[in-house]
Amino acid sequence: MSGASFASDNHAGVHPDVMAAIVEANVGPAPAYGEDPWTARAEGLLRREFGADAGVFIVFNGTGANVVGLQAMMRPFEAVVCASTAHINVDECGAPERFLGSKLIDVATPDGKLTPDLVEQAVWGVGDQHHVQARVVSITQSTEMGTVYTVEEIRVLADLAHGLGMLLHLDGARIANAAVSLGVGLGELAREGDVDVLSFGATKNGALAAEAVVVLRSELAVSAPYVRKQSMQLASKMRYASAQFVALLEDGLWRRNAAHANAMATRLAAGVREEPGVRLGLPVQANGLFPMLDPDVTARIQERYPFYVWDEGTGQVRWMTSWATSVEDVDGFVAHVREVTAAGPSSAPTMAE
Amino acid sequence: MSGASFASDNHAGVHPDVMAAIVEANVGPAPAYGEDPWTARAEGLLRREFGADAGVFIVFNGTGANVVGLQAMMRPFEAVVCASTAHINVDECGAPERFLGSKLIDVATPDGKLTPDLVEQAVWGVGDQHHVQARVVSITQSTEMGTVYTVEEIRVLADLAHGLGMLLHLDGARIANAAVSLGVGLGELAREGDVDVLSFGATKNGALAAEAVVVLRSELAVSAPYVRKQSMQLASKMRYASAQFVALLEDGLWRRNAAHANAMATRLAAGVREEPGVRLGLPVQANGLFPMLDPDVTARIQERYPFYVWDEGTGQVRWMTSWATSVEDVDGFVAHVREVTAAGPSSAPTMAE
Amino acid sequence: MSGASFASDNHAGVHPDVMAAIVEANVGPAPAYGEDPWTARAEGLLRREFGADAGVFIVFNGTGANVVGLQAMMRPFEAVVCASTAHINVDECGAPERFLGSKLIDVATPDGKLTPDLVEQAVWGVGDQHHVQARVVSITQSTEMGTVYTVEEIRVLADLAHGLGMLLHLDGARIANAAVSLGVGLGELAREGDVDVLSFGATKNGALAAEAVVVLRSELAVSAPYVRKQSMQLASKMRYASAQFVALLEDGLWRRNAAHANAMATRLAAGVREEPGVRLGLPVQANGLFPMLDPDVTARIQERYPFYVWDEGTGQVRWMTSWATSVEDVDGFVAHVREVTAAGPSSAPTMAE
Amino acid sequence: MSGASFASDNHAGVHPDVMAAIVEANVGPAPAYGEDPWTARAEGLLRREFGADAGVFIVFNGTGANVVGLQAMMRPFEAVVCASTAHINVDECGAPERFLGSKLIDVATPDGKLTPDLVEQAVWGVGDQHHVQARVVSITQSTEMGTVYTVEEIRVLADLAHGLGMLLHLDGARIANAAVSLGVGLGELAREGDVDVLSFGATKNGALAAEAVVVLRSELAVSAPYVRKQSMQLASKMRYASAQFVALLEDGLWRRNAAHANAMATRLAAGVREEPGVRLGLPVQANGLFPMLDPDVTARIQERYPFYVWDEGTGQVRWMTSWATSVEDVDGFVAHVREVTAAGPSSAPTMAE
Repeated sequence: MSGASFASDNHAGVHPDVMAAIVEANVGPAPAYGEDPWTARAEGLLRREFGADAGVFIVFNGTGANVVGLQAMMRPFEAVVCASTAHINVDECGAPERFLGSKLIDVATPDGKLTPDLVEQAVWGVGDQHHVQARVVSITQSTEMGTVYTVEEIRVLADLAHGLGMLLHLDGARIANAAVSLGVGLGELAREGDVDVLSFGATKNGALAAEAVVVLRSELAVSAPYVRKQSMQLASKMRYASAQFVALLEDGLWRRNAAHANAMATRLAAGVREEPGVRLGLPVQANGLFPMLDPDVTARIQERYPFYVWDEGTGQVRWMTSWATSVEDVDGFVAHVREVTAAGPSSAPTMAE
Repeated sequence: MSGASFASDNHAGVHPDVMAAIVEANVGPAPAYGEDPWTARAEGLLRREFGADAGVFIVFNGTGANVVGLQAMMRPFEAVVCASTAHINVDECGAPERFLGSKLIDVATPDGKLTPDLVEQAVWGVGDQHHVQARVVSITQSTEMGTVYTVEEIRVLADLAHGLGMLLHLDGARIANAAVSLGVGLGELAREGDVDVLSFGATKNGALAAEAVVVLRSELAVSAPYVRKQSMQLASKMRYASAQFVALLEDGLWRRNAAHANAMATRLAAGVREEPGVRLGLPVQANGLFPMLDPDVTARIQERYPFYVWDEGTGQVRWMTSWATSVEDVDGFVAHVREVTAAGPSSAPTMAE
Repeated sequence: MSGASFASDNHAGVHPDVMAAIVEANVGPAPAYGEDPWTARAEGLLRREFGADAGVFIVFNGTGANVVGLQAMMRPFEAVVCASTAHINVDECGAPERFLGSKLIDVATPDGKLTPDLVEQAVWGVGDQHHVQARVVSITQSTEMGTVYTVEEIRVLADLAHGLGMLLHLDGARIANAAVSLGVGLGELAREGDVDVLSFGATKNGALAAEAVVVLRSELAVSAPYVRKQSMQLASKMRYASAQFVALLEDGLWRRNAAHANAMATRLAAGVREEPGVRLGLPVQANGLFPMLDPDVTARIQERYPFYVWDEGTGQVRWMTSWATSVEDVDGFVAHVREVTAAGPSSAPTMAE
Repeated sequence: MSGASFASDNHAGVHPDVMAAIVEANVGPAPAYGEDPWTARAEGLLRREFGADAGVFIVFNGTGANVVGLQAMMRPFEAVVCASTAHINVDECGAPERFLGSKLIDVATPDGKLTPDLVEQAVWGVGDQHHVQARVVSITQSTEMGTVYTVEEIRVLADLAHGLGMLLHLDGARIANAAVSLGVGLGELAREGDVDVLSFGATKNGALAAEAVVVLRSELAVSAPYVRKQSMQLASKMRYASAQFVALLEDGLWRRNAAHANAMATRLAAGVREEPGVRLGLPVQANGLFPMLDPDVTARIQERYPFYVWDEGTGQVRWMTSWATSVEDVDGFVAHVREVTAAGPSSAPTMAE
């Protein structure tokens, strides 16, 4: 593939500073499974962000982080309340059901965000042995629809959850984008939101393959090392994953990468907002746009730029930006979109394309 | 950590050529989840080794490779026959039982190797609904005890398994060391051994984090993509894992790395064989030694070099070499061992150490 | 508890003929686990109904029958499409997710019945490794809302499923009531509907504790004995469960019991249909009514008769009849309902009740 | 089948008093799922035996009781230490691995009984994330080899387990036989043995299908209702299972049944002890004998009486007695054994039989 991609922020490569850190870690032998100095440093940096008593567990990928974190929070007869659009619900090939043994109670939302009302409606049958017992509210920050919860919104959900004897899980595959969007730190977001366990995504933020389970309620961390290993998410040469976190966290690269990605999304939104045939719909709060397009417009843009149709029924598509998206990439894409939409409805039959 | 380590072949770093391939893959965007050109190349190279119709599925780590491969072979009421010392039995924190839902029928062996007799004794209750149904024989090549099955030995086990309506799985975390030891190719080992599914380990061979499930019986490959994803073993930025395979497979680096590791083990064995207090025991056929030592000898060697005690009861320890072990490392270690053993039994009480 | 219950058809006792059959089976020793003559007879009778090549597996309860049957049909990365109101979705404490390891894709319906359109909307992401693969359409007959699929409706769903490479599962906890309602035989319903696997419920039909998994596609039956045993659903003294099937199937008692239960529901519907404050809503096609009531009406009826509120939001309640419901029970209940509704809205605050 | 069976104590029928209790429970409607008066009585009687704060959960069968009880005690990365001959290890088709997700660490024993030494050798890798964490010691009382732990032996194992941060589980499929053998009450055995969770088997003691999970450590009981339901072990018409416990527990029928079964085993042992070719081996402490026989002797006895060969390698067979075994049954069997053994080695080739 040549040229820019707006298909996914994991189509981007590895940030040069992250790659440099990986290369620098490649000196001589080091103990495996996290007993190395890079992991000690990475864990220290994660604790600097999230709190000195946070449990931090580095894993391979986002599905792994979610499933390990949720396992630490619940037993199989307990259930997770999540948005229908949640990654755990639609993009993990059923890994949560398979490895938690638990039901996901998914809730339709207009914008990917749970609300207290939606959660309350989903929690029923409490104490009824015939019904799964809702135990975890899982939110995604930023959401799979490009929206961002405020810290206050998270806090309200956490208070609701805790009041119901439940816990709050946060899938932070794009937590960096959300934190930047809100102008808060990672730990501020997590602690003021009173999150119990979160997945901290580094891969989309510029890493090669590195995510972390962050456990903010210390009693939940006790079993996490075993859960991680049993869940096949413990790297032998962990120093290389840890080095990625060091590079991102040591001097704020995570923030610069996320800020750039968000800025590119904003620039893209500004560039296409006025175009006929592009209905932006949801606010652009992080690094993704979810516009509605006519199918033939979609098809003609895809001739040059790959991206995903998010909902075939409505014509909604997804455009993602990343740390690697350049101003030129955005401007080129905007120009192409304008060209396509200016041409008006295709005169050729859609099928021919 | 400075200095050489004989504790594990995953204490070694990443081979420079593998690291170079990772860095080279870091150019611009690329489709995720294996739709990139590096993955196409890696899969092509794996098929060049294992056969054009082999199913190849790149995963993160060895536990993942074993559990994904075994899932493709069996249902939960079926069982795996393996050696008691098998990695799947003792070093994966119960991941096989957890994710297969299956029993492992483990068999004591003198040298980490299953034999037809041992397998036959373990297979009983066939057709009895009260008893798990033995479905897979799983062997490790080279074994966790540093021994190597001949291709003929593998073939005999495969024939036995197939005759019983079972399948043969090979945990090849160190398959490169075994192939070099036997003087055969990877595919020759697998195909002439009539293996059904194997885990091909690249990490210990010089990679950063890359393993592959190789499915040699094509009907078993159909579900593997879903099993891999659901098992949290599908990398988003897969090009970097694939680049590691490209580096190892394209011009035989895998063989050179394994040959070097094996040679270092042989050199180490030669260096300590005559020492009083070092009983080598098992033949050194790959890249590991499992000598018996007195506890105080062990303790004094460990003062300078870290390694694992394999069996506290017998005093057996494990010394591993890798692609990164140098002649100087070996000679320094041998000199230290000689010094320790020449000193005779410690005059100080063992407890004091 | 004294007096009639309209709360559930499993509040009824055991039909005297079924109890007599249990007592008659209690003569001397008999082989365990189904090797006894009663089981041979029961299996023969089940095959007389469902076809000579049907696989029949007697189990303890309805959840067990559903989970064993579904396990025989699918692998963990595959999914079940079902109505949101399905017993497997809301009343089995997550047993399907736990033991299949699979996602249930639940679909809202107006009347508990799936339609081809609803199924087609739920099946997406086919061939996409990130998404669970829809494998089974599961319907309940009669439904949890008291409605009944026609044989033609089942056949259309089966054809759709098979055309999509899927299978049709039928939860027949109340299949007898449905068959009587449709005026067809059990096997006619199953075979003309082209069902692949069904749960045949005897318990609600007058048994003590007996259900059967009926596998109509023979290749799916191979693993069922092991799945049943591993799923903790194999009775040791199976003759007593089998005797229950013998009593129900030998001379049509199942049909008489279901016909009576249905008739009582019809009588009850006729008795209350004209009452102000009782909105029957869904048609009464089997042995249950799901009327809408004002909460204070509900509360006042419940003072004398226990029953469940089905939906607190809408005021929908559930009234079930069974083989044991007498004409006097119905008439007494109708009289009580009339009395309550004739009294008009409660003058006392609802909270006070 | 006509005539006596020594094949299994679950070949026996239901004790007449138990059957009478089932029939008596069949009066009118009753709430389902244990909200009925019979269940209240059964639970009260179980608590009378095991202690007022015991959690008691009635289930369908022994595998269900074991798996539900163990689920309440452990998480998937934890392991069970048990004898190789344990029912959970060999006769439950892998249900424990499947539903606990856990490894069973099985230990060879001479007589089916674990000892502190055997347990200590099986518990290793504590705190090592690569290794399953031994959490439960599971013993069977009386054992699958017909032997009985003294209360003191149980207490020593419990103390050891608790000292290691582990729990003690007791599979009491034949706990009644053991209690009678020891001359102690059920609760005395459990409480003085400091057992944490046990399976109380009623089926082999004269019931139709009824077992109970008894939780003696109250914090483990919290999740048990959900675990039971999710594990498909909650009966809808529970009154009939409960009535069985009422019959057995109310006036000591359980004890009379077990005492009779044990006496019949003792009589059988006395009758054959002196016969040439019958080597009794293990002491007869409950209701089973495990003699060693020549294969042709086995074959000739089996011509008239069915029983199982327990170990084809050694010629060990199993003869079980039950509440239903009569003195005449035993004497007839003894006479037949004597006749066969008196005849000396078969002159006909074994194959011909």
